[in-house]
Amino acid sequence: MTFNPSSDAVLIEDEALRDGLQMESRIFSLEEKLQVFKLLKAAGIPRIQVGSFVHPKIVPQMADTDALIHAIPEADRHLTSALILNEKGLERALASGVGHLSMSVSVSDTHSRKNARRPAAEALDAMAELIRQALSSGLDVRAGLQCAFGCVYEGAIAEQAVLKATEKMVQTGVREINLADTTGMATPLTIRRLIQRVREAFPDTRISLHLHDTRGLALANMFAGYEAGIRIFDTCTGGLGGCPFVKGAAGNIPTEDAVHMFESMGVATGIAVETLCEAVAFLEDKLARQLPGRMKRVLDHRRSCE
Amino acid sequence: MTFNPSSDAVLIEDEALRDGLQMESRIFSLEEKLQVFKLLKAAGIPRIQVGSFVHPKIVPQMADTDALIHAIPEADRHLTSALILNEKGLERALASGVGHLSMSVSVSDTHSRKNARRPAAEALDAMAELIRQALSSGLDVRAGLQCAFGCVYEGAIAEQAVLKATEKMVQTGVREINLADTTGMATPLTIRRLIQRVREAFPDTRISLHLHDTRGLALANMFAGYEAGIRIFDTCTGGLGGCPFVKGAAGNIPTEDAVHMFESMGVATGIAVETLCEAVAFLEDKLARQLPGRMKRVLDHRRSCE
Repeated sequence: MTFNPSSDAVLIEDEALRDGLQMESRIFSLEEKLQVFKLLKAAGIPRIQVGSFVHPKIVPQMADTDALIHAIPEADRHLTSALILNEKGLERALASGVGHLSMSVSVSDTHSRKNARRPAAEALDAMAELIRQALSSGLDVRAGLQCAFGCVYEGAIAEQAVLKATEKMVQTGVREINLADTTGMATPLTIRRLIQRVREAFPDTRISLHLHDTRGLALANMFAGYEAGIRIFDTCTGGLGGCPFVKGAAGNIPTEDAVHMFESMGVATGIAVETLCEAVAFLEDKLARQLPGRMKRVLDHRRSCE
Repeated sequence: MTFNPSSDAVLIEDEALRDGLQMESRIFSLEEKLQVFKLLKAAGIPRIQVGSFVHPKIVPQMADTDALIHAIPEADRHLTSALILNEKGLERALASGVGHLSMSVSVSDTHSRKNARRPAAEALDAMAELIRQALSSGLDVRAGLQCAFGCVYEGAIAEQAVLKATEKMVQTGVREINLADTTGMATPLTIRRLIQRVREAFPDTRISLHLHDTRGLALANMFAGYEAGIRIFDTCTGGLGGCPFVKGAAGNIPTEDAVHMFESMGVATGIAVETLCEAVAFLEDKLARQLPGRMKRVLDHRRSCE
């Protein structure tokens, strides 16, 4: 990772292959996933979350994550990232040669009990232990905090709860904390306020944002996050993914739209929108539907005028 | 209009019946338009652009604007607004009893020549004359400047061109200048910069924003506009409308998503999202497709959980 967090450039982590495809009933083949990976790499995406090491019966879409990373040339594996939730996942991750690891728990107790079937505090303790194991194995790890900006069950989440969870994570020595707006309830104001508090409390910790577009505010929130000092953002090519609690809801921030926003404001991403839109075209073709991202339509129209 | 521009509340002008329906091949009946008007009024929309007084052969979707305003109870006509482009339109507007008038020209010379078939300067002069006539007839008028944040033909538009056009409009005595991002090329940074310059140059003139979501940035731009002091915004229920230069592109800001954004930040709109979503449901039913707005899906899901 050559990213320098003190500069104005941003690092975009594309999660279409994981957060995107895990929501789809169509299971992509290894060859199809490799094709998406190649296009994302060609577009210049610096970190590509390619899958998760979870139980194949629970998330069959991600069953071939080991094989996928194995099929990616060794020279490109530093670009890859994967999600793990437990020790078994960590074992598989270590064996796979993945470049970067994500872990994630909810700061909402109700959400944690419903989604991960255990209290938030217990899940946080377990993740801290898992992070320590991963770090001692020499892996690059980040810790995700779901529902950091609100929860459909609990409503607003106390900033203090996020700060406490962040502290626990920072104590593990983890390099990056990922604050997730899992249900798209953040606004530019709550983004700004929470980021400011977390950055003040942990000035040496790298913070990244994972924003969902459930209520249409993901790009506005991303802009607010950027102005609050955030330089790492998760997105999904095409705007795949989304909130499992709102069926048919909009998904993650479309990578191509995020890149357009930053580049049109003079903020470097290192990513080519045109190449990215080839990946969107590939995904739309396989999924037989139009994805929410806007820039592919804008470019398609420009081409048809030439 | 009870809107107080010095307060923090915002005034939302819904343009679904005009900027939205004029883009649809399906022509809505007078009864259907009245039904939409009733729902928008019930939701609390303070200004509803119901149509335009243009040639029925050019925009057949708007042919019944006179009859529509006539069919609206006199007590509600102060809520109505309509677009006019020429003297014939002004005559019809005066006869109709419409509450508020919009006029609009492009600040991009190429766009003006292609779209209105005359140079931008000539179109601006003609609009200034038309505004003077309308004002002397006692009508409440606003002057719109299209392509204020960029043009697909000319690229970036010089701020100086927008300032000059604004000055010409201010000299007519018009009460409100509407800056339009006709092709969705604005970013939060260009919004902020242009608004600041216009407000500095014309501190006593009310500025409103008309933003298109072509590249996904409309809500981010609306937030930036609000923070720059703008308190009047155009939107379209459901996210109807859009940019005629990008087929299939996203439309205007969905009113319901704009209302959610403001209300969730504590900014009063006076508008009920739930009622607005009944209008979305009506429009989606008639158009037989899902509209881009997000909040209806969020509310639908909430209801299905209860």
